[in-house]
Amino acid sequence: MCTIRYMSEKKLHLHPHHHLIDRSQRERMSGHHSMVVWLTGLSGSGKSTIASLVEQMLFAKRRRTYLLDGDNIRSGLNSDLDFSEKGRNENIRRIAEVSKLFTDAGIIVLTAFVSPFIEDRKKAREIIGEDDFLEIYIEASLTKCEERDVKGLYKKARAGIISDFTGIQSPYEAPENPDLRLNTERETALICAERLVHLIEEKISS
Amino acid sequence: MCTIRYMSEKKLHLHPHHHLIDRSQRERMSGHHSMVVWLTGLSGSGKSTIASLVEQMLFAKRRRTYLLDGDNIRSGLNSDLDFSEKGRNENIRRIAEVSKLFTDAGIIVLTAFVSPFIEDRKKAREIIGEDDFLEIYIEASLTKCEERDVKGLYKKARAGIISDFTGIQSPYEAPENPDLRLNTERETALICAERLVHLIEEKISS
Repeated sequence: MCTIRYMSEKKLHLHPHHHLIDRSQRERMSGHHSMVVWLTGLSGSGKSTIASLVEQMLFAKRRRTYLLDGDNIRSGLNSDLDFSEKGRNENIRRIAEVSKLFTDAGIIVLTAFVSPFIEDRKKAREIIGEDDFLEIYIEASLTKCEERDVKGLYKKARAGIISDFTGIQSPYEAPENPDLRLNTERETALICAERLVHLIEEKISS
Repeated sequence: MCTIRYMSEKKLHLHPHHHLIDRSQRERMSGHHSMVVWLTGLSGSGKSTIASLVEQMLFAKRRRTYLLDGDNIRSGLNSDLDFSEKGRNENIRRIAEVSKLFTDAGIIVLTAFVSPFIEDRKKAREIIGEDDFLEIYIEASLTKCEERDVKGLYKKARAGIISDFTGIQSPYEAPENPDLRLNTERETALICAERLVHLIEEKISS
């Protein structure tokens, strides 16, 4: 598919930091374009559920994907950050930077974080680049999310055990013009995932 | 290759954060195991040159790789860190955490950083996991590296324009038992790269 010839060592010596294998070659090896699919929404809105379904559907089509979420980010790279506004800003900045690296590696990145602030998501879009960024609003009312309370976090927030919890003590700023809006009260997670896969397929094949 | 069936939404709802596509599936899609190849050595020892050659050789074999180095890390994810000891510790910690994510994504990660402290490299190995970590010592004498001075950094360090420069004002702690030692004074970069590819191929195919 791609013919690679080793550059002479002399040439390499002159430009030792030039990455000779670049994004377009990695994308070609993947068989599709890479990009970042940024899911935002309240805790319990269905971000991780949809992201997991989307990953399974894309995997079945042999797409290269990776999912960044609280499980693999908060416990590792961002374990030093708290949930203050400053901590949250830095959390989103690092996720955006890591997503950019994965995109450069030819991978479709799905991110599933509340990411409540418009300004932070705007910054993420700037870091990643307009062309590689899809903002997906996973929509469900606070009432519904609190009713689901999958991880019991709303209960803890109401009891004051958790502070700065989005929707309770901290605001959620909904996207005004998301690339896609998926309402998990009106549609099943499976339908939502299918709609998102459709959008991703359009973008990565173009 | 892998048959994926969508789990029922009910099941997903019960374990919304369980990543259903896991590392072993991604490795199968890659066609090989994933791991971290950690290059350490003085500035000018040849880390980036060898890493670039290794990437080209692995790419030609259709291996999935990604290279982390100063170019894509210091300008992005770690742009907030300085070169103090604390800043350097955190630099290495984040690189190790990001490498771990790439390994989880089924990618062979090459890292090319001076990473001068034994303690930091030990921590990186702990974060990434013993089985997924290869420490490669890119060896060249300080005299030789300073003579090469590819980026003019030694000159600046000697002139006091750069402080905390490894080899001049800050120590380099050589690995005692690296998985591979490549001496770039005695062997060409191409030979070194071939030896490293041989080791990687052994590890990722087993």
